[in-house]
Amino acid sequence: MIIVMVANASSEQVKAVVDRLREIGAEAHISEGRLRTVIGAIGDRGVIQQLPWEAMEGVARAVPVLKEFKFVSREFQVDDSVVDVGGTPVGAGNFAVMAGPCAVESREQLMATAESVHKAGAVILRGDAFKPRTSPYSFQGLGEEGLQYLQEARETFGMPFIAEVLDPRDVELVSEHADLIRVGTRNMANFTLLRELGRQPKPVMLKRGFTATVDEWLNAAEYIYKEGNHEIIMCERGIRTFEPSTRNTLDISAVAVVKELSHLPVIVDPSHSGGHRYLVAPLARAAMAVGADGVLIDVHRAPETAKVDGNQALLPDEFSRLMDDLRRLAQAMGVTL
Amino acid sequence: MIIVMVANASSEQVKAVVDRLREIGAEAHISEGRLRTVIGAIGDRGVIQQLPWEAMEGVARAVPVLKEFKFVSREFQVDDSVVDVGGTPVGAGNFAVMAGPCAVESREQLMATAESVHKAGAVILRGDAFKPRTSPYSFQGLGEEGLQYLQEARETFGMPFIAEVLDPRDVELVSEHADLIRVGTRNMANFTLLRELGRQPKPVMLKRGFTATVDEWLNAAEYIYKEGNHEIIMCERGIRTFEPSTRNTLDISAVAVVKELSHLPVIVDPSHSGGHRYLVAPLARAAMAVGADGVLIDVHRAPETAKVDGNQALLPDEFSRLMDDLRRLAQAMGVTL
Amino acid sequence: MIIVMVANASSEQVKAVVDRLREIGAEAHISEGRLRTVIGAIGDRGVIQQLPWEAMEGVARAVPVLKEFKFVSREFQVDDSVVDVGGTPVGAGNFAVMAGPCAVESREQLMATAESVHKAGAVILRGDAFKPRTSPYSFQGLGEEGLQYLQEARETFGMPFIAEVLDPRDVELVSEHADLIRVGTRNMANFTLLRELGRQPKPVMLKRGFTATVDEWLNAAEYIYKEGNHEIIMCERGIRTFEPSTRNTLDISAVAVVKELSHLPVIVDPSHSGGHRYLVAPLARAAMAVGADGVLIDVHRAPETAKVDGNQALLPDEFSRLMDDLRRLAQAMGVTL
Amino acid sequence: MIIVMVANASSEQVKAVVDRLREIGAEAHISEGRLRTVIGAIGDRGVIQQLPWEAMEGVARAVPVLKEFKFVSREFQVDDSVVDVGGTPVGAGNFAVMAGPCAVESREQLMATAESVHKAGAVILRGDAFKPRTSPYSFQGLGEEGLQYLQEARETFGMPFIAEVLDPRDVELVSEHADLIRVGTRNMANFTLLRELGRQPKPVMLKRGFTATVDEWLNAAEYIYKEGNHEIIMCERGIRTFEPSTRNTLDISAVAVVKELSHLPVIVDPSHSGGHRYLVAPLARAAMAVGADGVLIDVHRAPETAKVDGNQALLPDEFSRLMDDLRRLAQAMGVTL
Repeated sequence: MIIVMVANASSEQVKAVVDRLREIGAEAHISEGRLRTVIGAIGDRGVIQQLPWEAMEGVARAVPVLKEFKFVSREFQVDDSVVDVGGTPVGAGNFAVMAGPCAVESREQLMATAESVHKAGAVILRGDAFKPRTSPYSFQGLGEEGLQYLQEARETFGMPFIAEVLDPRDVELVSEHADLIRVGTRNMANFTLLRELGRQPKPVMLKRGFTATVDEWLNAAEYIYKEGNHEIIMCERGIRTFEPSTRNTLDISAVAVVKELSHLPVIVDPSHSGGHRYLVAPLARAAMAVGADGVLIDVHRAPETAKVDGNQALLPDEFSRLMDDLRRLAQAMGVTL
Repeated sequence: MIIVMVANASSEQVKAVVDRLREIGAEAHISEGRLRTVIGAIGDRGVIQQLPWEAMEGVARAVPVLKEFKFVSREFQVDDSVVDVGGTPVGAGNFAVMAGPCAVESREQLMATAESVHKAGAVILRGDAFKPRTSPYSFQGLGEEGLQYLQEARETFGMPFIAEVLDPRDVELVSEHADLIRVGTRNMANFTLLRELGRQPKPVMLKRGFTATVDEWLNAAEYIYKEGNHEIIMCERGIRTFEPSTRNTLDISAVAVVKELSHLPVIVDPSHSGGHRYLVAPLARAAMAVGADGVLIDVHRAPETAKVDGNQALLPDEFSRLMDDLRRLAQAMGVTL
Repeated sequence: MIIVMVANASSEQVKAVVDRLREIGAEAHISEGRLRTVIGAIGDRGVIQQLPWEAMEGVARAVPVLKEFKFVSREFQVDDSVVDVGGTPVGAGNFAVMAGPCAVESREQLMATAESVHKAGAVILRGDAFKPRTSPYSFQGLGEEGLQYLQEARETFGMPFIAEVLDPRDVELVSEHADLIRVGTRNMANFTLLRELGRQPKPVMLKRGFTATVDEWLNAAEYIYKEGNHEIIMCERGIRTFEPSTRNTLDISAVAVVKELSHLPVIVDPSHSGGHRYLVAPLARAAMAVGADGVLIDVHRAPETAKVDGNQALLPDEFSRLMDDLRRLAQAMGVTL
Repeated sequence: MIIVMVANASSEQVKAVVDRLREIGAEAHISEGRLRTVIGAIGDRGVIQQLPWEAMEGVARAVPVLKEFKFVSREFQVDDSVVDVGGTPVGAGNFAVMAGPCAVESREQLMATAESVHKAGAVILRGDAFKPRTSPYSFQGLGEEGLQYLQEARETFGMPFIAEVLDPRDVELVSEHADLIRVGTRNMANFTLLRELGRQPKPVMLKRGFTATVDEWLNAAEYIYKEGNHEIIMCERGIRTFEPSTRNTLDISAVAVVKELSHLPVIVDPSHSGGHRYLVAPLARAAMAVGADGVLIDVHRAPETAKVDGNQALLPDEFSRLMDDLRRLAQAMGVTL
């Protein structure tokens, strides 16, 4: 932590900061410039960064030098993590295509879609039983019934599946059924949910909050990791910006930033970020080219009847053509699809 | 809903949209421009707005004309709501100052702070027993013990108190103790939590998600209202923008926008939006001048030792001077303080 | 400047940074933490901050400690500046209401509006002769003819006037006529324009770019100041955020932030930030309460016929009622209106 | 244009809107819903969209249905435009790599860098003679001398070059020398500059304002087009968001959005968007995969000595490896590199 004093800070004020640092067992390195005194604080960041330095007299700003997350950082683990999703590896050169309907609407809809995405080459099935909706008047999901259909699809097609959990009270149920549990964008900072997920055995996909910085996102992953669950996949899905032509702005750079800062696999959701069907294929290709470890794609046989997010779902044929594009790119990129 | 067709939409495509509208019991008004056909859809917005119109062939955009929320809108109730917080009215010209420590740290700290804010003129005590923290390594609150201290302060000083709830499993506990339950900014879209709060009897303060639009915020209030709890206070606390000199950007206009769209009281949190002590008083004054129904202010006797958010807490003396400013402004504004 | 090395930086890499600092005449203070080495660079910030430290091997980040602007900072001048606009003081407790039509549309329109805002108590007339428009198909202003009408209004009502300049080639012309020259939000970073304005004698109002940080805005003021023109008024007019219910988000906190960092007067434009007529009065009141030195308000006799921004113009009667509100608030705030 | 009336609009208010529409020669289609009346306005959008409908009594909102730009739209021209840059085609499957130093610092620096990027496969040389800088104390470019070095490099290596223009008074000079003239991000809405560029013969690269929406960016292109210059290349370079780990957030989706809405070529600047050297190659690959028509890349032999933006410049060797990557991807994507 770097503590910058105000321009006219008194020597007593500087001393008070130095004393406080020593009290908590940290060292203080003082640099006196012409205009300002700057104090470098060296010691346990967990202790130093928690204190309200800017509340001390004469302190202008406190600038953290180290990130707060530890276990999910590259410094803690240099090599890429590989997460095992029901037998399918994700990360470290293994690119995973996860596809299926946004919401499970019926047994018939799920099985037919699962069949077509399986045939086209997807390796993990997506489909949600619980849906968070902005309006209380929207369809909220089939619940446990949806999870049973997903299990049936897994048995039929040999594909593990991913499903979202919304409520800490549902974690046990979803954990029993799903191969990969998703934390949605609205729940990235739902710390009680993260803690529960850190205490169950299934891998977790942590979607970035659409208003979260990369640091906050990695801190959220740290919540899960530190409870004991190390199987975490990060998922970039777009952030909220001023641009209205897309639902959110896919932060493609964040994939490379997370890979620089962390050992966790990162995938991209090109469906929910763009919000329009015509954007899905270009963004999925960009995801592979930037170095992501997979994509999560909405596929629906009749998007115009979809109960959730039909505007952005690919038709099975469009998905199949996208898989062809990705296979060519995978070769150019040297990754396993 | 206005459905805008693409430039070269065929008459079959237009017909398909019109047929779909009629199927769901809505009327279609067709306007054929030189470049585009536009279809006005009239009927039950709850039904119309749920359908994925942009997934239909030939549809360029679907533009909602009406808001999704109903019960919290000015159209549903013209007069300002007044919320009763343990005997203290909030709204419709009753300006409520809520103050106290961000987190309850100890019995002694709480009682002393409660005494000073009570003496200065605050009418509702703030103090949290559960804290959501970005980092898993930060102080997470005293839990039930904190609630007991808050109850003791209520009895001693005759002030109702507000406290945050984070987990749907804690709603019953907090509801038993607190006079006003706060939903924090990170939980504004935690729909399972909102639903639980809609089913208990205490008034709820709904903080705006720091990345939520005003419409999303009002939709979140609708979740609570529609479960049966009509005692809701909105709290603007700043949104995330590109500006780094403040923790968040206080969206002061949102107070006036919510008052235009809704009958619910709106208060402002000048402490958490700015993130710096020197901003609290100017922003609290601006809140009163813009027409807010109250403010929520962090006060701490020794901010440099605060376990949470000490950088932005006012000292008791500073709070007392702010109360003097607010009393003068209240007279100019014609509101009851 | 604080230079943070990567976790495994070699002693050669640290030495290279230190050598480079010494080369440019700066001192280096080295702090070796358990995980990272941090180097405090002390010397001429103008020289140090220009160098691409992050391009050196082993450097993770370079964090500036001091702001780049000097002359406009509170450290350079402690007391509030007062800017003289054709005899009217702005700043240091002198609150100036500037009002008039967004664009000068005709002699008759300008004279009538000037008369009504003068009568209601405005002290500076606004009205533009040159308009920057997002679409090339919009009305672009009357040019020199508009400036002549503004001069006529000044003579008739004894009010100095403010007008915008868009093109460095028009600076001489506008400088001859206007009492206060406005740099619009789209030109805040038009450095060639800023330089020209720094070399002419009339005071300048610098609107904040709707996507500029407070630091960038103060750096833009520094461009003008350093060319020799010290008469600068800052104008907050809203920033671009994700919120769609207002045209821009008025950053009311920025007024207090600029007053903390700088000695320059700051006013607020409640018309262009909100973009809706019903927001003008509440935001103007908030501006006074937060401590601004004035407001800039669009007034139009028939907003529904306005050629520019009619949606947000007040009617003369509405403006007159707002002046009454401001007079009451001015008394409570202890400022001169 | 869709005009939405307030909930309780009177029939006189509806009639006033309809009358105003007829006055300007437009048709009005009235749809009366249960809660609101909505009026579809059909006629010349240039006329209709200019009027301040929301200033009329009883109007709640006016929603534009058509975009304001015409000539640069796909509706005006279905086929992709190809822009000829000194003999090098850009667009419609021709992917152009433009590379070189951010700023021309010396003859020697430019010639050496030009040689290495030419050898690696770049087809257009970048290098600026005029630099816009946030701080007035930064290096501002070599001016005309820089243009002469660029011309010398063109003759030596047979590469056309691109250079930025900042001031309308310099357009003639830059137009005489450069093969492609760049409008920087800070000048995207400098309409006087755009107009001058529309009246000279060289192609123009229009960088997106870092706070501009895609619609505003295309409107800016329309300014140039409508003055007579149809040779325009769009350049996405990142937008300002809340994310601090990158200088700006590359809006990769915007490439696909512009290609949907417009016939103009779109390239990507991965250097200035990310602001860090390690992001350049991943983002350049993503640009090709998403369907961009080229990239603009900073290359510097000794970034740690660069006078401008050294933090993000590639070393010649890194650039050469990136070219190899792009060649493999070009084959997979079926584009000409």
